[in-house]
Amino acid sequence: MIRRLTLVGLGLLGGSIARAARAEGLAAEIAAVGRDAARLEPARADGAIDVATTDLAEGLRGAELCVLCTPVATLRAVLPEVWRAAPGGCVVTDVGSTKAAIVALAQRLHDTRPVPFVGSHPMAGSEQSGYAAARPDLFRGALVIVTPTDRVEPAHAKRVVEFWEALGARVTEMDPEHHDRAVAAVSHLPHLVADALVAAVLGMDPGFLDVAGAGFRDTTRIAAASPRVWREIFQENGEALAGALAAFRRALGDLERLVATGAADAVEAELDRIRLARAGMGRPAR
Amino acid sequence: MIRRLTLVGLGLLGGSIARAARAEGLAAEIAAVGRDAARLEPARADGAIDVATTDLAEGLRGAELCVLCTPVATLRAVLPEVWRAAPGGCVVTDVGSTKAAIVALAQRLHDTRPVPFVGSHPMAGSEQSGYAAARPDLFRGALVIVTPTDRVEPAHAKRVVEFWEALGARVTEMDPEHHDRAVAAVSHLPHLVADALVAAVLGMDPGFLDVAGAGFRDTTRIAAASPRVWREIFQENGEALAGALAAFRRALGDLERLVATGAADAVEAELDRIRLARAGMGRPAR
Repeated sequence: MIRRLTLVGLGLLGGSIARAARAEGLAAEIAAVGRDAARLEPARADGAIDVATTDLAEGLRGAELCVLCTPVATLRAVLPEVWRAAPGGCVVTDVGSTKAAIVALAQRLHDTRPVPFVGSHPMAGSEQSGYAAARPDLFRGALVIVTPTDRVEPAHAKRVVEFWEALGARVTEMDPEHHDRAVAAVSHLPHLVADALVAAVLGMDPGFLDVAGAGFRDTTRIAAASPRVWREIFQENGEALAGALAAFRRALGDLERLVATGAADAVEAELDRIRLARAGMGRPAR
Repeated sequence: MIRRLTLVGLGLLGGSIARAARAEGLAAEIAAVGRDAARLEPARADGAIDVATTDLAEGLRGAELCVLCTPVATLRAVLPEVWRAAPGGCVVTDVGSTKAAIVALAQRLHDTRPVPFVGSHPMAGSEQSGYAAARPDLFRGALVIVTPTDRVEPAHAKRVVEFWEALGARVTEMDPEHHDRAVAAVSHLPHLVADALVAAVLGMDPGFLDVAGAGFRDTTRIAAASPRVWREIFQENGEALAGALAAFRRALGDLERLVATGAADAVEAELDRIRLARAGMGRPAR
């Protein structure tokens, strides 16, 4: 049982953590810190949180676990303030979709004061956003990647892992840089590619969209997501994304050459290798 | 009421046409021509077809409408034989997913004998194949693109259009070359891109697939389709696909540069333009 759980930011993810933690009875008290008091009110009214405040120090008073749930671009501005205000022993984590930069900042802050910080990335979400879209089962069956470093005591990493597991998530641990390359490859790259597919068709002839079927819709579904959120993610993870894009260009070029000049058997063997690798993927993270 | 409807090839599409035409009572007699008599037997046993034969001339005897439902690479080999065997007045169409090559061949054959040929491309299908996957409602609500030329009498084009409409499809007419560019853009390009996404991740680190979520699954779903079918389509529509790939590379390069160097507002405006264009697409063709 956590004495006080403090959420900084109460949108889709922060709100879902509050509702899930309440439903599971994980915290005696849940506090939320936001910039706009009125936007925290629905969560207090429906009982998901006990304390709503715009004051970080007040929200963190007596906290044992703090989860930073602001947009990824705001995390690095918020972390130094949290570092100063966190009570002794309070474990801090976040939900940002890139990890190397925030973990590096935490390592630097660690030299000033040893606050236990363990990066988290819950691979759960929705095309919707805001507290209104929050759901207590958002993390059930979802994959959460946790990125402890050797600065972090195993007991603190364990606390964060167990917290996510208590919300119903599966947890895997990863090095922050490896995490960023992995999500660049399987999340940020497909997103940019889906955006480019739509842009390419618009550039050729927007009328072509009239004959688009289920294949095009599936392939470009993620292009429906929030421009603000994804602009931040693309720019935050720019370096790993550039690496994934280079790998994608090579793969596309290889495939195009094979289709244009290859023997039927060779093309089918390559398409089959791809099909089987995809079929062999584990059950969906979400 | 069609006196005899002849289907050359009885897989997913031919079988679904047989079952739908039977359900709608569109033909007094349905004949199927296949290379392997045993594989036609289930359709005769369940009443979807009346005549099963491996002899094209026998299958076409007395036919008023003939639909070629073989794989796209076989169509051009079959068409000259159909041309010789079709009875006078029999209208011929097909279900191939590229149209310029087959229509051009029909134009050349037309100089030897005026058989009315009207190209069709039903945008319906499944990752499954074969008669076992055939469904009488496969064309209900699906888009069928019909590609008549000025060699075709309007009455013959009308017969083909009305046939698809009787199966529940929406029909649109298009020039064969325009058709091939459109499907290259919204069907063949996304497919090759989905294949390249999987291949790129395999090239980077196959372990990355362990953290892939719903976004990656949606974006690459079409990579699960039949290697044989898609090798044929990619190679059959190679020229239009190369044009679509060039447009895609430009769009991807533009987007990458914008994300790497653009102001937040400019990136978000572009992502929003893409999001809105996609949201404005008509209801799914299938």
